[in-house]
Amino acid sequence: MAKIVVDAMSGDNGSPIVVEAIKDFKKQYPNVELVVCGKQEELESIKDLAEIIDARDVVPMDAGALQVLRMKGSSMMTAIRYAKENGCDAVVSCGSTGGFLSASTITFKMIPGIKRAALCTGFPTKIKGKKLTVLDCGANNENSAEELVQFALMGRCYAQAVYGIENPQTYLLCNGSEEEKGAPEVKEAHQILKENNFPGFMGNVEGRDVFEGQVDVLVCGGFAGNVFLKTCEGVAKWMGSMVKDAFKRSLWAKLGYIHVRKGMKDMSETMDYKTIGGAMLLGINGIAVKAHGNADAYNFFHALRVANQLSEMQIVEKIKKGLEDEGH
Amino acid sequence: MAKIVVDAMSGDNGSPIVVEAIKDFKKQYPNVELVVCGKQEELESIKDLAEIIDARDVVPMDAGALQVLRMKGSSMMTAIRYAKENGCDAVVSCGSTGGFLSASTITFKMIPGIKRAALCTGFPTKIKGKKLTVLDCGANNENSAEELVQFALMGRCYAQAVYGIENPQTYLLCNGSEEEKGAPEVKEAHQILKENNFPGFMGNVEGRDVFEGQVDVLVCGGFAGNVFLKTCEGVAKWMGSMVKDAFKRSLWAKLGYIHVRKGMKDMSETMDYKTIGGAMLLGINGIAVKAHGNADAYNFFHALRVANQLSEMQIVEKIKKGLEDEGH
Repeated sequence: MAKIVVDAMSGDNGSPIVVEAIKDFKKQYPNVELVVCGKQEELESIKDLAEIIDARDVVPMDAGALQVLRMKGSSMMTAIRYAKENGCDAVVSCGSTGGFLSASTITFKMIPGIKRAALCTGFPTKIKGKKLTVLDCGANNENSAEELVQFALMGRCYAQAVYGIENPQTYLLCNGSEEEKGAPEVKEAHQILKENNFPGFMGNVEGRDVFEGQVDVLVCGGFAGNVFLKTCEGVAKWMGSMVKDAFKRSLWAKLGYIHVRKGMKDMSETMDYKTIGGAMLLGINGIAVKAHGNADAYNFFHALRVANQLSEMQIVEKIKKGLEDEGH
Repeated sequence: MAKIVVDAMSGDNGSPIVVEAIKDFKKQYPNVELVVCGKQEELESIKDLAEIIDARDVVPMDAGALQVLRMKGSSMMTAIRYAKENGCDAVVSCGSTGGFLSASTITFKMIPGIKRAALCTGFPTKIKGKKLTVLDCGANNENSAEELVQFALMGRCYAQAVYGIENPQTYLLCNGSEEEKGAPEVKEAHQILKENNFPGFMGNVEGRDVFEGQVDVLVCGGFAGNVFLKTCEGVAKWMGSMVKDAFKRSLWAKLGYIHVRKGMKDMSETMDYKTIGGAMLLGINGIAVKAHGNADAYNFFHALRVANQLSEMQIVEKIKKGLEDEGH
């Protein structure tokens, strides 16, 4: 059974949301062992559900790797170190993205053979319940063709482990669906994946066709992936606020809203990637799941669930095995 | 007064939408001279409004540059050639993007000193009526730092000419707002723009913050720009269809729709970049405006309006002058 270490303090909403999430999580997964790092007095109510490790410093939201590594007494660094030293399965935090991911990478080290780690997340699609795996969402500023090919491999393992898709259909994000389109590293990655008959490789996909449901894994360099992710977020938020404005135009429109509220809620949940359960840094020799900085208890619960799933499915071992099969 | 050459045949909707657009356009701009290339018998009703040049071949929607150049009797190639040979101000088409833009580039040649042409378009923002200039939207697969800097210059000229913004606020599309973020060519372009005190250069902007209204010109390489544009399109379409679905859930919801229809229409018009009036290839030694392939009369009218504005504001001369000022 998995053993997951939790940083309880570093999110915008402090320990209360983590405490609530842990209570819910233990109801559904009573056998998963939890170790929670944070201020002891704030974690009193879960002391029968988890092992508590007192850690009193809180890493600020904008902290970088060095600051996190130096804050040895912080809940974040205590959690990462404890996980590493005790061979735990996963560590979960909703603190500073850069700080948490870099400190995890330095502590856990990379999987031998992997050139760059990639930030990986699930994303909604038009098909209800169907999720799309996107990587790299921004861990890197630039990536080579070989790195993109490794992202395809890691994304495939993730989609299999987290979404139970046997043979994920994998695409490269591109400025055209034709084979000859793309930045040079994308064109080269396309050729490598094609020539090696990478399982489930389907070619290039344009930004507008990503959500149709045919894409299981979307492979992109960190720069384009980040542009993709944040553009989605920006447009979705903007349209959401325009919809709200439309309903405020008259009393009739307001009455109308009451009747479509449920549909609207479904929609905003579909578009809200925070509900998906955090992003994971793939390629490091351990499982580090990053929940959104302003996660609520529901979001954090999902991050715990993803960490548990990734442990159970032995994602790190799967990636190592995949690299071996490719002869690395 | 401007003289604009029109390809009447190459769009999905054939000559009727062009004929209608020209009638509207001549009402508002009676002094602009129009030359229309296409099947004479289909252009009968505008023969008093424009000079008609009979051109009987129609370039297919997926035609590349070579095919267009070979189809000498086509409405598209006749229009491009006529514009070049007679020193006309602009040429407008809603045919094959790749074919039209490449054939225009080959015919008009590049502005001396410009390294790469960029596809430039207007884009909606949260501020009603305020448009954002985006380039390159996908004319290139990759771009160097120096090319990005030239895009900044051309985008500035475009925003001044088309939107009348005196000192456009110019940003680089990036995976973070911090100076040290970005693909190598973006980082380098940032340094060049900063060190040269490029007028209105404001730094980097992330995909989610682009629409807030502070960005007048968004500079990006063709790959990232295309991902940005098509992701916007994909998310906007998807959300639009979700909104419609929400309204279909019950009779009450349907009644609600009647009352927000106007607001919804405003919204979808805001998000529909087709209403903006086409994209232009900046950097070539002439004005080539490409309307959307399935443009209607309203869209084509706007493309004509943009072509006229760009001619009046002498966009090509402005870019040449800008290059000189920079010592090229």
